[in-house]
Amino acid sequence: MTPRLGVCYYPEHWPEDMWAEDAREMVEMGLSLVRIGEFAWSRLEPREGEFHFEWLDRAINTLGSAGLKVVLGTPSATPPKWIVDKFPDMLAVDKEGRPRKFGSRRHYCFSHQGYREFAAQMASRLAERYADNDHIEFWQTDNEYGCHDTTLSYSDNARKAFRHWLKERYGNKPLNETWGNVFWSMDYETFDDVDLPNLTVTEPNPAHSMDFRRFTSEQVRNWDLAQVEAIRKHCSKPISHNYMGRITEFDHFRLGDHLDIATWDSYPLGFLEDRSDRDEEFKHTFSRMGDPDFQAFHHDLYRTVGKGRWGVMEQQPGPVNWAPYNPAPKPGMVRVWSHEAFAHGAEFVCYFRWRQPSFAQEQMHTALKRPDNTPYPVCDEIRHVATEIRNLTHARPKAEIGLVFDYRSQWAWEIQPQGQGFDYFKLVFEYYGALRQLGVNIDIVDLEKSGLSDYKALIIPGLFAFSDAMKEQLDNFKGHLILGPRTNSKDENFKTNLTSVSAQLGKPISLDMVESLRPGTVVELVNGGHFKIWNECHKTEAQTEELKADGYPAVIRNGKCVYMAGWPNSEKLLEVIETELTKAGCKTYKQPGYNRRQSIGMHEFQLNYEAQSAVIKG
Amino acid sequence: MTPRLGVCYYPEHWPEDMWAEDAREMVEMGLSLVRIGEFAWSRLEPREGEFHFEWLDRAINTLGSAGLKVVLGTPSATPPKWIVDKFPDMLAVDKEGRPRKFGSRRHYCFSHQGYREFAAQMASRLAERYADNDHIEFWQTDNEYGCHDTTLSYSDNARKAFRHWLKERYGNKPLNETWGNVFWSMDYETFDDVDLPNLTVTEPNPAHSMDFRRFTSEQVRNWDLAQVEAIRKHCSKPISHNYMGRITEFDHFRLGDHLDIATWDSYPLGFLEDRSDRDEEFKHTFSRMGDPDFQAFHHDLYRTVGKGRWGVMEQQPGPVNWAPYNPAPKPGMVRVWSHEAFAHGAEFVCYFRWRQPSFAQEQMHTALKRPDNTPYPVCDEIRHVATEIRNLTHARPKAEIGLVFDYRSQWAWEIQPQGQGFDYFKLVFEYYGALRQLGVNIDIVDLEKSGLSDYKALIIPGLFAFSDAMKEQLDNFKGHLILGPRTNSKDENFKTNLTSVSAQLGKPISLDMVESLRPGTVVELVNGGHFKIWNECHKTEAQTEELKADGYPAVIRNGKCVYMAGWPNSEKLLEVIETELTKAGCKTYKQPGYNRRQSIGMHEFQLNYEAQSAVIKG
Amino acid sequence: MTPRLGVCYYPEHWPEDMWAEDAREMVEMGLSLVRIGEFAWSRLEPREGEFHFEWLDRAINTLGSAGLKVVLGTPSATPPKWIVDKFPDMLAVDKEGRPRKFGSRRHYCFSHQGYREFAAQMASRLAERYADNDHIEFWQTDNEYGCHDTTLSYSDNARKAFRHWLKERYGNKPLNETWGNVFWSMDYETFDDVDLPNLTVTEPNPAHSMDFRRFTSEQVRNWDLAQVEAIRKHCSKPISHNYMGRITEFDHFRLGDHLDIATWDSYPLGFLEDRSDRDEEFKHTFSRMGDPDFQAFHHDLYRTVGKGRWGVMEQQPGPVNWAPYNPAPKPGMVRVWSHEAFAHGAEFVCYFRWRQPSFAQEQMHTALKRPDNTPYPVCDEIRHVATEIRNLTHARPKAEIGLVFDYRSQWAWEIQPQGQGFDYFKLVFEYYGALRQLGVNIDIVDLEKSGLSDYKALIIPGLFAFSDAMKEQLDNFKGHLILGPRTNSKDENFKTNLTSVSAQLGKPISLDMVESLRPGTVVELVNGGHFKIWNECHKTEAQTEELKADGYPAVIRNGKCVYMAGWPNSEKLLEVIETELTKAGCKTYKQPGYNRRQSIGMHEFQLNYEAQSAVIKG
Repeated sequence: MTPRLGVCYYPEHWPEDMWAEDAREMVEMGLSLVRIGEFAWSRLEPREGEFHFEWLDRAINTLGSAGLKVVLGTPSATPPKWIVDKFPDMLAVDKEGRPRKFGSRRHYCFSHQGYREFAAQMASRLAERYADNDHIEFWQTDNEYGCHDTTLSYSDNARKAFRHWLKERYGNKPLNETWGNVFWSMDYETFDDVDLPNLTVTEPNPAHSMDFRRFTSEQVRNWDLAQVEAIRKHCSKPISHNYMGRITEFDHFRLGDHLDIATWDSYPLGFLEDRSDRDEEFKHTFSRMGDPDFQAFHHDLYRTVGKGRWGVMEQQPGPVNWAPYNPAPKPGMVRVWSHEAFAHGAEFVCYFRWRQPSFAQEQMHTALKRPDNTPYPVCDEIRHVATEIRNLTHARPKAEIGLVFDYRSQWAWEIQPQGQGFDYFKLVFEYYGALRQLGVNIDIVDLEKSGLSDYKALIIPGLFAFSDAMKEQLDNFKGHLILGPRTNSKDENFKTNLTSVSAQLGKPISLDMVESLRPGTVVELVNGGHFKIWNECHKTEAQTEELKADGYPAVIRNGKCVYMAGWPNSEKLLEVIETELTKAGCKTYKQPGYNRRQSIGMHEFQLNYEAQSAVIKG
Repeated sequence: MTPRLGVCYYPEHWPEDMWAEDAREMVEMGLSLVRIGEFAWSRLEPREGEFHFEWLDRAINTLGSAGLKVVLGTPSATPPKWIVDKFPDMLAVDKEGRPRKFGSRRHYCFSHQGYREFAAQMASRLAERYADNDHIEFWQTDNEYGCHDTTLSYSDNARKAFRHWLKERYGNKPLNETWGNVFWSMDYETFDDVDLPNLTVTEPNPAHSMDFRRFTSEQVRNWDLAQVEAIRKHCSKPISHNYMGRITEFDHFRLGDHLDIATWDSYPLGFLEDRSDRDEEFKHTFSRMGDPDFQAFHHDLYRTVGKGRWGVMEQQPGPVNWAPYNPAPKPGMVRVWSHEAFAHGAEFVCYFRWRQPSFAQEQMHTALKRPDNTPYPVCDEIRHVATEIRNLTHARPKAEIGLVFDYRSQWAWEIQPQGQGFDYFKLVFEYYGALRQLGVNIDIVDLEKSGLSDYKALIIPGLFAFSDAMKEQLDNFKGHLILGPRTNSKDENFKTNLTSVSAQLGKPISLDMVESLRPGTVVELVNGGHFKIWNECHKTEAQTEELKADGYPAVIRNGKCVYMAGWPNSEKLLEVIETELTKAGCKTYKQPGYNRRQSIGMHEFQLNYEAQSAVIKG
Repeated sequence: MTPRLGVCYYPEHWPEDMWAEDAREMVEMGLSLVRIGEFAWSRLEPREGEFHFEWLDRAINTLGSAGLKVVLGTPSATPPKWIVDKFPDMLAVDKEGRPRKFGSRRHYCFSHQGYREFAAQMASRLAERYADNDHIEFWQTDNEYGCHDTTLSYSDNARKAFRHWLKERYGNKPLNETWGNVFWSMDYETFDDVDLPNLTVTEPNPAHSMDFRRFTSEQVRNWDLAQVEAIRKHCSKPISHNYMGRITEFDHFRLGDHLDIATWDSYPLGFLEDRSDRDEEFKHTFSRMGDPDFQAFHHDLYRTVGKGRWGVMEQQPGPVNWAPYNPAPKPGMVRVWSHEAFAHGAEFVCYFRWRQPSFAQEQMHTALKRPDNTPYPVCDEIRHVATEIRNLTHARPKAEIGLVFDYRSQWAWEIQPQGQGFDYFKLVFEYYGALRQLGVNIDIVDLEKSGLSDYKALIIPGLFAFSDAMKEQLDNFKGHLILGPRTNSKDENFKTNLTSVSAQLGKPISLDMVESLRPGTVVELVNGGHFKIWNECHKTEAQTEELKADGYPAVIRNGKCVYMAGWPNSEKLLEVIETELTKAGCKTYKQPGYNRRQSIGMHEFQLNYEAQSAVIKG
């Protein structure tokens, strides 16, 4: 139950005579987990059918003998050249219709059946060989699905598979009517008439795009499942995947359904620079600390994806090489980031990576040790963390407050933002940020599957469409419910939902108008605050708790259910949430500035994301 | 002579049992015109040769029996999938060389002869069937030519047609000499050597680009003409097309030559957000009112295109779905927009559309009624307008002041802006805005064809090249003439015109230099004001009325003709125009702020585009 | 030894009966050099094998007889249509994979063997015909290699040639190990497995990209060499090429190795607007003067490229047509620009061009004379310059200070900037600007070949990797050495150089960390000033001369060698350089504002780039 530290390691990059000393030093530093193997296909099978597992045997043995547990990755993220030569049509095709070339990684299309089988066979071979190897603790499939915009592929294979998927989905149901193809004479005669929704003159039918997104997400899940099933034939050890933060092109919950452990790769500074939903001033302020809430959000997310079992597989230890700007973390931040993970219940935090290579794409990506094998200063921080976590536990109890995140909603509002500012992730993340300011523990909820019974308060901003499962969950939910704008405004076929959220509010509510607002344009609320980005004008028989200057309700209430008819400014959002949590009987702990609070078991963490150090008064 | 209100309707989107009640409510609301049919090909001919006109018969009969007159559209903007399968090469090709896929609308190439004939045959069939149907008032061909950047196509068919067009145009005239192909060894041996002017290393010869733009414009005209001739074989009712504001890739005047009525689709808020020639502050200010002059400009333009007969075919009634931001109009604005049209002589204003669909691409585009059939609040405004227009007339007398707009000049200066800020539409529109501030009625003049005799003042900013017809018109013109920068600086073959505007000024004028200016760089005028964007340095024997700080004349005069040697700031422009109009004997009515004045017959309209309401003192 | 003025002329653009008068006027204006022929292929060989040199004979004779010396260009930058028809695969292919079409210029791929031979044969024919023509002074090959982004081509021919080049380069050396292809399983089995590094999913291996850049640069050199060898078979006159400022895709030093004279095309205003490394305020300030140091930098650069023999082949005389904005030079600036060239030792300055054409792509590009043959006012300035330079000499002695510029480093840091702000040209140029403020003469040094013995101080900012030749030069160098950030941080195979700059500093120095900084983020120096963009954290046994606030050294010294561990702000940079130059015994002349000083022989030039005129106190 004690959390652990680990590291990512590439024995194939270094002379074999360095391995033992590397392993010794890892253990000495307080690390007990080491992930290997996930890009090594060209060294495991340099030519078709010519296998070289011996070096991997020796690497595992060397690491394991030193006292480390090994996470073994399947190498399918980097199909070598000979596989691409064998299957030239296995390359993914980008939205512009161009095949993506060999020469980096993740160049395969999830819809290529031949490569899918090759990848599963390789997983099978590894599982067979190492099924009973005591040094192996668990598996990782592939690496960072979706990284480098590699989920959506517009290849011929994807087209064929999409048509097949549509046949399966619709069968005898009328596709034309479901999508509304009468509009603009877009009717199809057969499923084979349907093309992929790229390069159209103006936007394609949103129902068409949405089904392509669903199909694509399922292709990723099925692709992964092929490897998982191959491994499970031989080996009963847990299987994980390392997800990537802020990547939403496939449904992580649904992929997680068939995995045992969720891990994610946390690069607080790299992600900050890469995000479009934070402005320059914010990025400047947190240039060396990272977004104070971004890591926490993903910790809470992957705890749910992993059904409780999760960790950080790659933790940024210094400047990376891939963000627009790559500053160094403020001294002490790697320790803060590590503790933020443990405060959320991580079983382990693995740093990326042991030693910085002197070659190839990531030669400027720092590690724990420099290319010349001298340690970076961060090693001292890590040793410190290793001692600090000895008395911790990673058993994190369920929170009192749930916040719903839904991948389908992300796809839906990317397809139909209706205003450039409407970004579903940003919307949910602003609610999350408000909760963080209140110092409470939060669960990210998979509304399709997570049980809701324990929550005192549940928050659902912007959820596209309630499925039957969701409706049933909500109908049985007894706590306080905060619903955000656009929630349930569509049905699952991407048609306007005429009844909207009325069922949850219990009283009729009808929509007069929705509008998106340009930056700077706001709709004032009568009692202070305003709506930005998104504004809805409703008529309702429920109680109008707050009114907007346009004469329509801003906050609508029926009993424990509250609906916010727009995107509130952050102070207003904080106020509404705080009030509602208090009503729900949740204790809050308003945090000064960018200090953050998190509790696990008996332990309370105070995490400081301010530029200045702080003294915790105890 | 009384103007009317109408609406766009899609019977194919709704159960047939709703039609009669819809029609009844339209009439009850004060509407008397209804446009239908323009996207319905897949329901009129779902498979080749399988026609289903019966439902359309019933729809027309239901609407007509309720007292509505029908505008019937030909459905050629949305060729169904089976036509694309029949003619795979009918898809337009974008500038990057990519065919534009099926799945939205306007995917055809104007140069595909096969589809042109199919579209004309469908028009012929409709005309034959409904030639004598009393409910039909007039026809509409296709829908919004040029929308979604669909005029210019770089397909094989376009290439072949362009070569043919060049043969026709040049015949025995030397193309190489006319274009100046000796430059950079670009000479051609035969017309079949000439390619389309995309994907060249650096810019192609502007004469080459200009001919491609001319060719493309004529392709649109001829494409439309094929339908018009097909209709006229069977039916003598008027024929219209619904143009789109701010689309200039084809010459609307020349298309209008063979049509009877011009209509346009007016989306004041959508267009405001979509324009690059207005800054963020302006967009913020007019976010809910639209540009105070943009609709007026197009009303004046299409009155000329329609040779006096025109209307608004699609009037925005609420938030749309296609602009970067989609706010709601300020209450009352739909009324203001409607009256702006009638003040300019519109025969009708039709709202888009009757009922918002719950499906497909425009499900977020508001209408008069919501998807659940409840009315939007705008319906009350429309009822009010219906009562207000009962005593109006749409007979708009010719204005005293003409402002020339020329599509060829738009193409020329897009091809050769010579400075990023030089935008012909923006230049003309700034002159138009100054005139609007002076409260006068304006005619947009087609200098090729409009008679000039009645104008006291004629304004010609930035006109590329005077054709022989234009020269003759100007030679006979007796009123005041304000010429703007770049006017007549080229000949029709896109060569520098060495004599420039001298003929009009009556005195020799020679150019020392022209320069384009970066934002913020200006050339001061000695008596106040400045030139921005564009500055010309002339020597002249005419009178220098104003001098620039660079020692060259800013305003050059000979009698009633004035030439402005640059792009003036708005205050200066207003001053020069006001002075000249006064000299010309035109009465002006300077407007406060963003109030606008327009008169028609005995009626004077005061239109308020300010954020606050205003009281008209009488 | 007296410098001269000249002009570019296109006899093929004008009626033959104008030539003699043109020539007479050129001479009368003080010009003695005229460049012709470089785009005339379609008039020299309009169809394969059909040659028309007679008009060129007459043009040369007319110009020569008037007293002008002729520079004759080979016309290979503009292959005519029939050659493209003969070799359809000769078109260059852009990074997106699209062939670049005929219709402008520079559409050929440097890797097409067929066109390379055609171009060499045309050069051979010209050389044979004019070998002994006394009017010809020297040759120019092609025109502005690299202009319009035409160096890098991703064609099939380039792919084949690259594979061949790799075979030649690596032969028995292990490519996979040299590049580090074990990373991400990128190993290749044979050289024919290697593709061009475009359209990969994420960045390709930097070693792969770097070799492609090296290959491309050598392709340009070899392409040029084919023409040079063809000319030399027949003619012993000097051969030149006109390089383009700010173009770095091929190594100008290495091309210059086989040429006799370097020329460059200087467009101070056009280049200013086109650059991304200067901000809007700077561009606004120097809109009419150009960057005060940009021309000087290139003069110094091409003096080295030309091994002492160089000139300006095209000098901007007024507004051009190709920059985003095209203002007119401030009156007097053409004179300043001309003198800046002569102050740096130019043998000639040729203005571009004699007469502005009224047709084709450059019809808005001014010249000395307008299309109607009237002179532009700049002609008076040029006459003035002609009289002023009579007593000058172009023998420019070697400077005391050398600044290293290295094309490979430009490629390396484009491939691996590691932070968006890191621009090698900008880095070197900031050092150059500081030197200019100090009023000293500077040599741009080709560290591979230039002798270093005369320099009192040598400055090397950001040099990618020291080659053996460079190391040897530096080992023997006795003067002061200022090394900038990133210098020698890689080896030539794009691996991290573990020993870094220690050898030059003489004492061990090791790197703790490097980081790139976002705009606005800086690292303060303890004694004032700061690092921006780039910051390095070193441990060293050498002397820490200045300390940063992060506790690491900012300036490290060992004897005469100084290393700056970051990118200093401009005041700090100036201070460090001034101090070091003083220690090195170099006299400095701090310049007020944007005045600039340059000396040649007995002459000292004061060049004024301020908006206001200045009086030189003597």
